[in-house]
Amino acid sequence: MTRRVRVGINGYGVIGKRVADAVTLQDDMDLVGVADVVHDYRIRVAVERGYPVFAADPSLRVEMEAAGIPLAGTLDDLLRQAEIIVDCTPKRVGAQNRERYRAAGVKAVWQGGEAHDVAGYSFVAQVNYAGAVNRDSARVVSCNTTAISRVMGALHARGWVKRVRAVLFRRGTDPWESHINGMINTVVPETKVPSHQGPDAKTVIPDLDITTLAGAGSHNLSHIHFAMVETTRPVALDELRDALWDAPRIAFVRASDGLVALNSVIELMRDLGRSRGDMWEVAVWEDALAVDDREIYLTYQVHNEAIAIPETIDCIRALTGLEPDASRSIAKTDRALGITKAFLPTTTTPIPHMAGPDVRHPALERVVTRHAELRETGSKRAEEPEE
Amino acid sequence: MTRRVRVGINGYGVIGKRVADAVTLQDDMDLVGVADVVHDYRIRVAVERGYPVFAADPSLRVEMEAAGIPLAGTLDDLLRQAEIIVDCTPKRVGAQNRERYRAAGVKAVWQGGEAHDVAGYSFVAQVNYAGAVNRDSARVVSCNTTAISRVMGALHARGWVKRVRAVLFRRGTDPWESHINGMINTVVPETKVPSHQGPDAKTVIPDLDITTLAGAGSHNLSHIHFAMVETTRPVALDELRDALWDAPRIAFVRASDGLVALNSVIELMRDLGRSRGDMWEVAVWEDALAVDDREIYLTYQVHNEAIAIPETIDCIRALTGLEPDASRSIAKTDRALGITKAFLPTTTTPIPHMAGPDVRHPALERVVTRHAELRETGSKRAEEPEE
Repeated sequence: MTRRVRVGINGYGVIGKRVADAVTLQDDMDLVGVADVVHDYRIRVAVERGYPVFAADPSLRVEMEAAGIPLAGTLDDLLRQAEIIVDCTPKRVGAQNRERYRAAGVKAVWQGGEAHDVAGYSFVAQVNYAGAVNRDSARVVSCNTTAISRVMGALHARGWVKRVRAVLFRRGTDPWESHINGMINTVVPETKVPSHQGPDAKTVIPDLDITTLAGAGSHNLSHIHFAMVETTRPVALDELRDALWDAPRIAFVRASDGLVALNSVIELMRDLGRSRGDMWEVAVWEDALAVDDREIYLTYQVHNEAIAIPETIDCIRALTGLEPDASRSIAKTDRALGITKAFLPTTTTPIPHMAGPDVRHPALERVVTRHAELRETGSKRAEEPEE
Repeated sequence: MTRRVRVGINGYGVIGKRVADAVTLQDDMDLVGVADVVHDYRIRVAVERGYPVFAADPSLRVEMEAAGIPLAGTLDDLLRQAEIIVDCTPKRVGAQNRERYRAAGVKAVWQGGEAHDVAGYSFVAQVNYAGAVNRDSARVVSCNTTAISRVMGALHARGWVKRVRAVLFRRGTDPWESHINGMINTVVPETKVPSHQGPDAKTVIPDLDITTLAGAGSHNLSHIHFAMVETTRPVALDELRDALWDAPRIAFVRASDGLVALNSVIELMRDLGRSRGDMWEVAVWEDALAVDDREIYLTYQVHNEAIAIPETIDCIRALTGLEPDASRSIAKTDRALGITKAFLPTTTTPIPHMAGPDVRHPALERVVTRHAELRETGSKRAEEPEE
């Protein structure tokens, strides 16, 4: 019988609530419960879903119980019952919990709001899973860094990357708090140059030469990156497409399919029936891919709320030693969550700038064939052997 | 006595109405009138300002007059009275007027919506004024291309530019038509890669190695560019600041002065009493300037409605031979419009990342000194000799 890991979650916010749902979808994990400090609608959803709720601060017990939140105990109780804790508390609060987790003898997963040093290991499953196996803790990097690591990691693994230059256009705020900071009709550039995401990506891929600039816009539906990758040799468009196709958790979208903007991609996620309209994959615009003799150009969407959730699940498996092999864990997570390489496998429209009206590009032909295979077999990863 | 040029404007839209106002502010130009096809509030403003109005299409005379627009004639009448016509009709309509202008024997200025070939000469005053002198026509390039040409031109003139990579984050629509296409809560990436602005900049600076990517955001207050400039040698921050300071029509803004976003800069333009809140200068974030051994990083705001207006005035002087010298025309235009190198000359806060709390960076010291000089003398250009 498969060993099962007891997972606790500290912080039931944007990330914590998604991690909780994702944990319950795994057949090798049990959700011990979630700890938080609020007693409003946010934690009531956890109660509704039957998740044991713990008071993150004992002094809040009375208040939470008075509000009708049945409590299973305090954070200390949660730490006694869990083998591993996923810290989803606000940025920089997490690091303050380090000694507490250590004293309780639980392993810990931090999120990207914390510094690399909190765990000494920054994690993106498809890049450096192996190094996290049986560690005491690791940090799942931020949404932007996760996306950079997946996309640039796929190119870097092929030895193509000389230098990455990317501009990150962040969402102004998250949907749930758009009434507080509902930035409208402006752009706020970051004056910290380079922005932190470039250096952060090096905590995952140390020899990646990357510089990022960033700004925030008047939208709350995810981030978008515009990247120019100087290459070590000319890379053909079909090679590029293959490299992205072969990497997990990167999926293509196409403006020619009506997916012309961040909101149309999110609408597709809603139409696909995804929990909260989440997109765990990096969505790369296939018809905005371009290459020349020196560079690769990529435009991709990063769903900040959801992209790091599968990484968190994999990180739990790595730290607990539940699964030593990255690709097996990734396949298992992806199957459980419904992560795909092809949002719309029936889409076969030729890409205008890649071929004439009657000529289908060979790479597209391969993609179409794979789409057909996927329709037969479900997800690509689901075909892989598993324990 | 100074010779005066008779200027006609075809199209009284976003650009045309600004060109009209700017022409009336010059002491060497007379506005013969403006032609348009509408009869609503837009053209009524021209009537209100006392500009002679011409029907761009004779068939619209009755309709326009019935709406209470007093007409001075038709476009043909305007062409008979003007020596030079500024074509501010919608994109690609302008090119259709070429033969008509030629037949009427008037010189023509096109805007950046038209292709380079419409005039065979793409114009940015501080880059290539001389080549336009006494030509029959020229094309004032688009807002984005004008900004790129000013900023990159300043660096290129110093031999620093090896290669420019820039991401342009465009406004979703113009303020006046935000009810029609009031893009909200999204980002629309351009799938044309590279975007057209890079190649367009080469029509002004042929040997500029530049690639641009672009997208549009949920805001209507101007564009923002994030640029990474690979340099031929390491460039120091104070050299960079000096190069930008020395170029016309580039002004610094600083987040440390509260100018943290596109809307705050526009609010400053409104506070400064500028016509329509316009910003003719490229606003470069001084505290987001950065350099390393290989590159220069710049973030700047481009007021799409106004930035090409001074270029249009200069272009009129060049084509008509009114002023053969670029810097004299630029100085004259800038003085007439109120273009400045220093929006807030009283601002002297040290830039945090450039010096310690008690140490003022030498370059900043120079800027402060210049600011003080400016307060004494008005604009820098105003000091220059003039005919």
